[in-house]
Amino acid sequence: MSEITTVALDAMGGDNAPVEIIKGAVAAINEFADLRVLLVGQEEVIKKTLEGMPYAQDKISIVNATEVIETAEPPVNAIRKKKDSSIVVGMKLVKEGRADAFVSAGSSGAILVGGQVIVGRVKGIDRAPMAPIMPTATGISLLIDSGANVDARPAHLVQFAKMGSIYMEHVVGIQNPKVGIVNVGAEEEKGNALVKETFPLLKEEPSINFVGSVEAREIPEGAVDVIVCEGFTGNVIIKLYEGVGSVFLKKIKTGLMSTFKSKIGALLIKDALKKTMKDFDATEHGGAPLLGLNGLVVKTHGNASHKEIKNALGQCITFKQQKISEKIAEAL
Amino acid sequence: MSEITTVALDAMGGDNAPVEIIKGAVAAINEFADLRVLLVGQEEVIKKTLEGMPYAQDKISIVNATEVIETAEPPVNAIRKKKDSSIVVGMKLVKEGRADAFVSAGSSGAILVGGQVIVGRVKGIDRAPMAPIMPTATGISLLIDSGANVDARPAHLVQFAKMGSIYMEHVVGIQNPKVGIVNVGAEEEKGNALVKETFPLLKEEPSINFVGSVEAREIPEGAVDVIVCEGFTGNVIIKLYEGVGSVFLKKIKTGLMSTFKSKIGALLIKDALKKTMKDFDATEHGGAPLLGLNGLVVKTHGNASHKEIKNALGQCITFKQQKISEKIAEAL
Repeated sequence: MSEITTVALDAMGGDNAPVEIIKGAVAAINEFADLRVLLVGQEEVIKKTLEGMPYAQDKISIVNATEVIETAEPPVNAIRKKKDSSIVVGMKLVKEGRADAFVSAGSSGAILVGGQVIVGRVKGIDRAPMAPIMPTATGISLLIDSGANVDARPAHLVQFAKMGSIYMEHVVGIQNPKVGIVNVGAEEEKGNALVKETFPLLKEEPSINFVGSVEAREIPEGAVDVIVCEGFTGNVIIKLYEGVGSVFLKKIKTGLMSTFKSKIGALLIKDALKKTMKDFDATEHGGAPLLGLNGLVVKTHGNASHKEIKNALGQCITFKQQKISEKIAEAL
Repeated sequence: MSEITTVALDAMGGDNAPVEIIKGAVAAINEFADLRVLLVGQEEVIKKTLEGMPYAQDKISIVNATEVIETAEPPVNAIRKKKDSSIVVGMKLVKEGRADAFVSAGSSGAILVGGQVIVGRVKGIDRAPMAPIMPTATGISLLIDSGANVDARPAHLVQFAKMGSIYMEHVVGIQNPKVGIVNVGAEEEKGNALVKETFPLLKEEPSINFVGSVEAREIPEGAVDVIVCEGFTGNVIIKLYEGVGSVFLKKIKTGLMSTFKSKIGALLIKDALKKTMKDFDATEHGGAPLLGLNGLVVKTHGNASHKEIKNALGQCITFKQQKISEKIAEAL
């Protein structure tokens, strides 16, 4: 039997907490033999939610945390003041080595701040990027950074490229992943000041497979495996990606309901369309890791379903077994 | 009869030149009574293409330009050296007042450089932004700047907001258009240094209807009418928008062809889907104007069809009749 991975899971974070979160934990321990979950949150609420769910009792424990950080709270303040919140308590479990990872669907801001302040960065890492997996036409790509840092400097982007490569190679299993920097054109002389300064650094970096600029148009086609950018740009990319997909789908559904003929057609294409959409479903990939910390922190969507939570927990196992934190520390 | 609008049209630019371009010109003069078109390019080629097309001969003239700027040429050099190219000759017609506008499907870089260098900026305008119309779930929005300038400063973004408002109000016809700045969160304290500095300036600007931050996720929903951002971000937005749409559609088509049942369904939904897609078709809106110049310059897609060219020419008429350049000059 392999090594056990222990994950602290924020039972109170996100729109569907606690039910979907706890359901996800139960599904995960039933699927992954080497997983233990610490449900962090209000003990009574968690106990009540767990009632009647079938799972091996020795694989799930509850860690009481009486407070909850709301999404709208200013993150720095929340982390400082709510010492007994599920996010602070959960992250401390990672810091103290009692958990290998922390997963939360709660406040992005609080998770970012807590990750830096409580879990702490690997020595030598200046900025910890958030790196969600994006579904593409040909597979998946890693976007790094999707918004943990704005106004990052060239040296930070080089670290992002290295960390992203390690993640794609050892967690996702893509050999020698192609790294591209988000740019406004293909040529080396294109770009803003940040990209122009970063480009030659990436080109000279022997540990990565840098293929040059990637234009935003090429991202959905899966042109590169690791999409490097500064957090403001990355945030625009990930949010627009989700927004366009959702509006597009809504438009198509409305279109399909517009005539009698199209309604009949809609019934016939339903299964095929569902399968297609599954390929573009970000929840299949289990949240966005915050890389470069002394332990893994994973942020899932705020409206995460039990499936996304389960997949996020599964990701933590690979992360630990592949010793990603150690590999990142060595790569610096 | 209203005033005549004369447009210089680059007959040599873009993937489908000269045929689609010239077809677009013919369609436009047949549709818009107050339009005159100067086809700029290699006279013999244009004459031959025009043969057999039905149009009023007094409404289309040819202005000979022997050179062609290729898409891959470094733009500054191309504008400087190819004095007899269709882009340089066409822009000079605007500069000299012989045309009100210049429309081209050619090299973006050359059009941007030529716009600034040949046509010239309105006095007081520091940077001329490119402002494409984006289709949304609820209508259309104007993105300003989509990549004419990178590393713009706060004062430039304020000018973009003003110009975009004038355009949306007087060309598109949206009263008191809502202006938003692209940001990573809704709160005023969010953002990178540029956005944080720009936000209060926009808030204080009495001539615009500033509604605050717009997250990329909200753009496809049509949350604001004028989307203000720096050109690097805008370029990512417009290209990703088009890229996601196209990949999504391709995926759906493949999905529809996957089973016998879905193939039958696909036949039934074809018309409804086509109508839906038309709403999301950027070519319906006729290219992106480069604002803040002494005359209108419009860049269409490189693969523009005759329909997009026709719509771009139509846009020039409204632009002139609404005296947009004058309104921009007054607003400064």
